[in-house]
Amino acid sequence: MARNLTMLTDLYQLTMINGYFKCGTQNQKAAFDLFYRGSNGYSYAIVAGLEQAIDYVKNLHFDDDDIDYLRSLGIFGEEFLNELKKFRFTGDIKAVPEGTLIFPNEPIMTVIAPMFEAQLVETALLNIINHQTLIATTASRLCECTKGAISEFGLRRAQGPDAGLYGARAAYIGGCRSTSNVLAGQMFGIEVKGTHSHSWVMSFPTEYDAFEAYAKVYPDSCLLLVDTYDTLKSGVPNAIRVFNKLKAGGHKPLGIRLDSGDLAYLSRQARKMLDEAGFPEAKIFVSNDIDEKVLLALAQQDAKIDVYGIGTKLITSFNNAALGGVYKLSAIEEDGKMIPKIKVSNSPEKTTNPGLKKTVRVLVDGMAAADLICLHDDEFDTSKPLTVYHPEQTWKKTTFDKYELKELMVDVFKDGKLVYDIPSLKEIGEYCDKSKGEFFPEYRRVTNTQEYKVDLSDNMWKLKHKLLGGR
Amino acid sequence: MARNLTMLTDLYQLTMINGYFKCGTQNQKAAFDLFYRGSNGYSYAIVAGLEQAIDYVKNLHFDDDDIDYLRSLGIFGEEFLNELKKFRFTGDIKAVPEGTLIFPNEPIMTVIAPMFEAQLVETALLNIINHQTLIATTASRLCECTKGAISEFGLRRAQGPDAGLYGARAAYIGGCRSTSNVLAGQMFGIEVKGTHSHSWVMSFPTEYDAFEAYAKVYPDSCLLLVDTYDTLKSGVPNAIRVFNKLKAGGHKPLGIRLDSGDLAYLSRQARKMLDEAGFPEAKIFVSNDIDEKVLLALAQQDAKIDVYGIGTKLITSFNNAALGGVYKLSAIEEDGKMIPKIKVSNSPEKTTNPGLKKTVRVLVDGMAAADLICLHDDEFDTSKPLTVYHPEQTWKKTTFDKYELKELMVDVFKDGKLVYDIPSLKEIGEYCDKSKGEFFPEYRRVTNTQEYKVDLSDNMWKLKHKLLGGR
Repeated sequence: MARNLTMLTDLYQLTMINGYFKCGTQNQKAAFDLFYRGSNGYSYAIVAGLEQAIDYVKNLHFDDDDIDYLRSLGIFGEEFLNELKKFRFTGDIKAVPEGTLIFPNEPIMTVIAPMFEAQLVETALLNIINHQTLIATTASRLCECTKGAISEFGLRRAQGPDAGLYGARAAYIGGCRSTSNVLAGQMFGIEVKGTHSHSWVMSFPTEYDAFEAYAKVYPDSCLLLVDTYDTLKSGVPNAIRVFNKLKAGGHKPLGIRLDSGDLAYLSRQARKMLDEAGFPEAKIFVSNDIDEKVLLALAQQDAKIDVYGIGTKLITSFNNAALGGVYKLSAIEEDGKMIPKIKVSNSPEKTTNPGLKKTVRVLVDGMAAADLICLHDDEFDTSKPLTVYHPEQTWKKTTFDKYELKELMVDVFKDGKLVYDIPSLKEIGEYCDKSKGEFFPEYRRVTNTQEYKVDLSDNMWKLKHKLLGGR
Repeated sequence: MARNLTMLTDLYQLTMINGYFKCGTQNQKAAFDLFYRGSNGYSYAIVAGLEQAIDYVKNLHFDDDDIDYLRSLGIFGEEFLNELKKFRFTGDIKAVPEGTLIFPNEPIMTVIAPMFEAQLVETALLNIINHQTLIATTASRLCECTKGAISEFGLRRAQGPDAGLYGARAAYIGGCRSTSNVLAGQMFGIEVKGTHSHSWVMSFPTEYDAFEAYAKVYPDSCLLLVDTYDTLKSGVPNAIRVFNKLKAGGHKPLGIRLDSGDLAYLSRQARKMLDEAGFPEAKIFVSNDIDEKVLLALAQQDAKIDVYGIGTKLITSFNNAALGGVYKLSAIEEDGKMIPKIKVSNSPEKTTNPGLKKTVRVLVDGMAAADLICLHDDEFDTSKPLTVYHPEQTWKKTTFDKYELKELMVDVFKDGKLVYDIPSLKEIGEYCDKSKGEFFPEYRRVTNTQEYKVDLSDNMWKLKHKLLGGR
């Protein structure tokens, strides 16, 4: 990301840091957690966007034009503007690696830095992580609904150029491992896919002419869109005629694409026609407004589909268009010590967990059994049994005798320096598959999802209740 | 938009234009219409994104890196890649100016260019126009639900940096005339707004200390967030104490912001408390998950709210996250003549209108009465009555005796040259207000919206039915 996104922030970040500057507290160290709330409807999330968040933090600086613009607002003094000119990020960031499956309230990222810096970065970090984590999660959920492969096809419906580009990246992480987006292919090395549209067919005198011309240009990757006029009466028979010619010439056709109509019925019929014509290896691709519900329904109807092209519903996360991640103060320095802070709310789910944190995942025989949101200095003796409680109904508890613990966050920035080796997108994808593989399918399915245990450690529980002042 | 978005396209645009190149038809002129379908749920739309679409077309070119990447895919020959190196847009584009209220199936943009060019630009034009038109429309609908002002506050929840930036621009066009987004303020001159968050309050020993410190820094624009601990018992009384001090010092406080709880009840109570304390001019700002339904409900409950900060539901168009605009072939050159083309579909609403088009708006006493989708060379004699039919139930008709006609599209590119004076964003906003003002409120309201008459001209009707071959 070559662009400088420093000005991509909410005005109130600047009015606040100007306030801290005037109060002389700009260097007071503060800790913020970035996490999402369970109320958003996604029982789990796939972390994505860290690489772009890192680029953003590394590039943070105000150009002269930026300072001039801020001066023109008439609310900032020259001393503060001079401070901004020198602005660099000097703090620490811990984060959950991209591709990790996480749960509500677990910190995706913790920023510990002078208030001046920690406050300024809130908006852009949320923007980047919210977006990519949303799309990676939506992609992952779609993948849970089918045994077929899913290709990301949504660029034209994405909410702007970035949404298409980084959306394709996030979809890759979540499990949709190819895209129609050429720029995403170029920038991230994702496999690009695509053949022709209805306009190709319409621009020739007949459908057969159009198919024949296409096969001539792409004899070894011939995928034909068969629904321009009539799928079963014209499209599939014409495709088979062309496939026969390809076969005679020693080429293997790739398959057909259906983009309208009853995909269950049409795919079963087309499969039969292709098989009978001697093309059992020709694949059936489908597109047209596919989402989780449609995928489940197609599976139930025994549709014969190899690859789904999903556009709008994936790239905009149409059925849940925002992750709703937040960035909340968890501790603040007083007399050289980080003092835990809590935000109380009338809505209990909006009350935050206080203090510097870590999340540990309890693994039993390699499978995830529970997560614990802990204080950062909590220690566990894994030779002793570990009891995990339901966060509200505390009489519900489970004790693990033999288990392993794994911390979810890693160090990314230390004193402003990047200390994290950024993995390749391919590695992130593999890591995501592994992370998802640690969860039984009942935790990942999209309907009647089994509730996964996410508890607070004893020390976190005690601290929270002390600060809340309840009984 | 300094970035070169040429590679922001679907692979199939490239495979198709390579196909046209191989078939020798790359210079055959084609016409495509960009429009949205009624099935998306938005009865009208506010056009936005044209300026960015123009930037995209002007900057269209392939860099050496792009050619190298395309070569690496192994499906394109050197002759074609050489052709891409020379690529420039040389065609015509007509478009509806930004801020215009339009209806489904009316062309937002018509591209007439050699097939090679007209096909390539599809994806990015759709991406840009779909996104901004979606957000401008969502903004306009929100504005219809309240007499209060709406400020765009959604950057942190936007689907990536561009979605926040161009979303703020589109929201401005639709009627939300201020934003929290500093970059949008800098780039587009939109008024920026913002004060402080809960973390500001939490970083001070008490809420009162936090308010006092804020007032000291911003004595003439003091807006206090009052719901960190308890809105009515602590927040509003503390704000009033600070406001009294400001008043004593000769300053006028701006107001308070509510961000949680029962906004109807809390705003009424806070209004009463502020009035009784002698601050009838202090404004009440609210935020917290506001959408059309909440706005209508708050109005019904006589909430006392001056300004709404709307984030997630506006910037992601959460309740309808895609416009679903499409780009369809309408005519193709044969023997020097543009021959109308139609795409037939099993879904009747997906059957296109054929031929080169214009849309005319029928105005009666300055108010919009009907639109006609016409053939580009249709002529009307406004001294004679004009009869408009319902597109399906053709026995429903209306005849206008005295009326004016206004064409909706203007020339933007002619032979690859920009021939359109791009208006400022402020002018676009004013034009949008004027365009909306031509419609009676019943056409703009969000519930039980009155159906506006959008008919086909006689010649368009005849052509379509001839091509469809129905009775």
